[in-house]
Amino acid sequence: MRIHIQNNPKQPAVFNVSPEQWGEALARAGKAEAGYFVSFGESDGEFTAVGPDIDILISGPGTIKHLLPDLQPDRAPKLKMIFSVAAGIDAIPADRVPPVPYVNNRGAHAEKAGEFVAMALLMLAGGMPECIADQQNKVWGQRFTQGLRGRRATILGLGAMGGASAEQAKHFGMHVTGLRTRPAPHPACDRVLPTDDLDAVLAETDFLIISAPLTPATRKILNKDRIALMPKGAYVINIGRGPLIDQDALCDALDDGFLAGAVLDVFDPEPVPADDRVWTTRNMIMTPHVSVDDAISYVPRSLDIFFANLAALETGKPLLTPVDFSRGY
Amino acid sequence: MRIHIQNNPKQPAVFNVSPEQWGEALARAGKAEAGYFVSFGESDGEFTAVGPDIDILISGPGTIKHLLPDLQPDRAPKLKMIFSVAAGIDAIPADRVPPVPYVNNRGAHAEKAGEFVAMALLMLAGGMPECIADQQNKVWGQRFTQGLRGRRATILGLGAMGGASAEQAKHFGMHVTGLRTRPAPHPACDRVLPTDDLDAVLAETDFLIISAPLTPATRKILNKDRIALMPKGAYVINIGRGPLIDQDALCDALDDGFLAGAVLDVFDPEPVPADDRVWTTRNMIMTPHVSVDDAISYVPRSLDIFFANLAALETGKPLLTPVDFSRGY
Repeated sequence: MRIHIQNNPKQPAVFNVSPEQWGEALARAGKAEAGYFVSFGESDGEFTAVGPDIDILISGPGTIKHLLPDLQPDRAPKLKMIFSVAAGIDAIPADRVPPVPYVNNRGAHAEKAGEFVAMALLMLAGGMPECIADQQNKVWGQRFTQGLRGRRATILGLGAMGGASAEQAKHFGMHVTGLRTRPAPHPACDRVLPTDDLDAVLAETDFLIISAPLTPATRKILNKDRIALMPKGAYVINIGRGPLIDQDALCDALDDGFLAGAVLDVFDPEPVPADDRVWTTRNMIMTPHVSVDDAISYVPRSLDIFFANLAALETGKPLLTPVDFSRGY
Repeated sequence: MRIHIQNNPKQPAVFNVSPEQWGEALARAGKAEAGYFVSFGESDGEFTAVGPDIDILISGPGTIKHLLPDLQPDRAPKLKMIFSVAAGIDAIPADRVPPVPYVNNRGAHAEKAGEFVAMALLMLAGGMPECIADQQNKVWGQRFTQGLRGRRATILGLGAMGGASAEQAKHFGMHVTGLRTRPAPHPACDRVLPTDDLDAVLAETDFLIISAPLTPATRKILNKDRIALMPKGAYVINIGRGPLIDQDALCDALDDGFLAGAVLDVFDPEPVPADDRVWTTRNMIMTPHVSVDDAISYVPRSLDIFFANLAALETGKPLLTPVDFSRGY
């Protein structure tokens, strides 16, 4: 089995796989003696030198997109699987993906995503947007706030990240509603409903957590009309993709005081332009698309997910984290 | 049994007991038919009109301190218990307290304190001090951070608030060390050590959480020399009292980059003066002494603790939350 890892030195180091990380993951998987032939590359030339011979490509979505012409059956005839060191596929043109399984690392972000959502819930409930503004203005502005127990969290998108978010919300005693395309009970949710019920659920939402994939069906799923369905004083958290929200409508609702606060890790567009209104929107807390990727464990966890899929591939069992481009995730 | 509740309209409403809250707590305690005679007052005159006849005073420490001359045996001969709707006694002159049990509401702050410490840990680990500064400067500054799992939390003061903090740290997979005067195992701590071991433990501390009472022994317990014992890049959280820290030394360690961040809810002095350096200290997150007092549940929980003590008093059993002025908490 010939495996090629194509890194991109222009992306943050957290997303690139080092030979040391590969070796450690190989050992954790009990495959140190399996005799895989592995190569590492960064440049186009380093890929094309091995491309015709590889069975598996491990890379990030930007690089995979760039390499798509070289991954077609005529140029990579042995290719059996593409493993993306990322979960989202919204950057990949589905009609150009070669006819082999495209497998992602969903699950690798879960624990960090749960931590981020816990932090965001606590910051919003605890009045941190106002505290931050007061500190900037050197104002001692005492406001007493209510804890999370008994308050209503709605989680739109109940994949690995949404599930971890639900567990944290439940840990703090919240009433948790999960929304997903095909609803099934979730141990951390008081109820799971189909995404079609979103409008009705928004009226019963104190904290909306968006952790859905970006697809044609979810683009701007939180728009002006849906924000208006939420109770006055509700909060929004987004760890999915920026275009899931009509960002201008969200900023309007914050600036006019209808929504009480938001914590966004993702934006439309990214990076956020210097003259974007989002920087100075009232009660807005921003993090620059860093919050679900653990600086230490992201690649190790991704590789563990890779090896679980590789074992399935080698034994003819169903893959664990295949992407379905027709669904968009 | 004659019970007087003395409120202070000048303090935040969260700390005052309303007749409705009293009635609800009475019902929760199963004492609606107990025939207690209860009065409410705000002015000095309202207190002195009933003072000679009361068995129990319920009030806050500022008002209790103010009323101390009227609470002596010659003026309040029937007084059997003082219940403070607060935990700290650092404002009360011990030598002027009348010879009756002084009981506090410790435990009422625990859940909210745990939420605040969870938030503070996640904000510091998640790089929020830098994110907040970047947002103010409209800078898209991606930094990837490490989650809490496996990192070392040290909790100085393992009372109700410290214990709740330990539970949250453990929930996020941290290695938790508790420090208290008289160490005993705690279910959320990997180890509990005597406070005398502080110097040695500081060297093994990634996140120091201070939740101790303010006493002569704990005043400025975190000083310049002890900060220097911590690893470079460590973090500090304070939910106890401002003077537990040499605030100037802490600001120095943050501004020169030795410490990586701090979240403080308490300061020295309070309110923080407009020209204090703490407002603009690097990687400093401030909340104005509001973080452990839940806007909704603070008084109800305090009254539940009161009624548990009252039942003990009435049946001759040991009180649940008496203050020992010789220990200072």
